[in-house]
Amino acid sequence: MRLERDAALIRFGSARVASLATTRPSGAPHVVPVTFAVADEVVYTMVDSKPKTTTALQRLENIAANPRVSLLVDHYEEDWPALWWVRVDGHATVSSGDDDLAVARSCLQDKYSQYRDQPPAGPAIRIEITGVSSWEWSR
Amino acid sequence: MRLERDAALIRFGSARVASLATTRPSGAPHVVPVTFAVADEVVYTMVDSKPKTTTALQRLENIAANPRVSLLVDHYEEDWPALWWVRVDGHATVSSGDDDLAVARSCLQDKYSQYRDQPPAGPAIRIEITGVSSWEWSR
Repeated sequence: MRLERDAALIRFGSARVASLATTRPSGAPHVVPVTFAVADEVVYTMVDSKPKTTTALQRLENIAANPRVSLLVDHYEEDWPALWWVRVDGHATVSSGDDDLAVARSCLQDKYSQYRDQPPAGPAIRIEITGVSSWEWSR
Repeated sequence: MRLERDAALIRFGSARVASLATTRPSGAPHVVPVTFAVADEVVYTMVDSKPKTTTALQRLENIAANPRVSLLVDHYEEDWPALWWVRVDGHATVSSGDDDLAVARSCLQDKYSQYRDQPPAGPAIRIEITGVSSWEWSR
């Protein structure tokens, strides 16, 4: 029922959206959808120009206080034996440095045509992968 | 860009799967997909008979140590102006009591035909809603 690690990571990286879980300074969990890209055992996501209710994003405050994050890619179908998910745990760092922004932006633009027209401004979140967990019904 | 609270909760409740974020005793976040149902300001989810890698589920250990949870329903499309998500924060309690199992099972069976053939055994997780957040691109 567990996928082989590299197969799981490839499946994870090909998904179009993930749920990014962080821990608030209060200890309560926080979870938000993110676009992301995987390259060389690192997950990149960026603050982009999608309309936000605030620019002081909770995810950035949470990561500053506790860099441990968890990302979930979930595949749902009504045919439950086809269900699968992959979770990636990691340590996140937030950066607005030019080099870090350029690397993250390049990875995201390779994956999402939407970002070629509207490059994400950042900051960039760089997540070093510390663990990969996966599940599927039928294996 | 925020939905009206009751509209957001209806949209949340009609989704087929959510990401359940909890906090591990270490302070690291944990996130797992769950089937769920909403009734009277409570979210119900249950441990079911889908194959698991372990019966000592991390989510139950986490909730025992910290009852604060966050649930995300995310709608992704390549047409980004159609994106939306709803997040529900709450306080979770785990129960294996007959009455609690019966209520949760009934709510889940109303929503998921899959559970009518294979009733979830439990335990049940009952989440009192403490907050509803939402976002959509175009409003």
